[in-house]
Amino acid sequence: QGSGDPQAQLQVRSLAATCANCHGTDGRTVPGSSVPPLAGMPADYLSEQMRAFKSGQRPATVMHQLAKGYNDQQIAQIAAYFAAQKK
Amino acid sequence: QGSGDPQAQLQVRSLAATCANCHGTDGRTVPGSSVPPLAGMPADYLSEQMRAFKSGQRPATVMHQLAKGYNDQQIAQIAAYFAAQKK
Repeated sequence: QGSGDPQAQLQVRSLAATCANCHGTDGRTVPGSSVPPLAGMPADYLSEQMRAFKSGQRPATVMHQLAKGYNDQQIAQIAAYFAAQKK
Repeated sequence: QGSGDPQAQLQVRSLAATCANCHGTDGRTVPGSSVPPLAGMPADYLSEQMRAFKSGQRPATVMHQLAKGYNDQQIAQIAAYFAAQKK
């Protein structure tokens, strides 16, 4: 699950903690939620969506604004984190 | 309410629309909401809070990440927009 370095893992977990506010702990949304789950989704798919939000290619309510603040490396780290979570 | 130019006003309204997702339409939250209202708050106060979120000086669940994507001019425009809203 991501690089072995505990410091880097801690950093990724704090990045991913922001997402939990809407996407649920470790990206597991409650059934029936209008917010999509992230846990166990393919990392490439997650990165692609974040880039699409960031470029405005994919319309959003808040994701376009949230995505602006992440660089490519952070997007990849977040995507890998949620891809590794159990559904 | 902001500059007279309709184009600029439209732009500010679309900026402020993102905030409505959590802060309610025109920044009026429902009673008892854990999210603070924005409507009619002093513009300086709103700008100060956004800069504090952006710098990390004020901890937040998502506001720190949202604020990263706004420049100073956008922060001032958003603050003026909500300050002008009826409580």
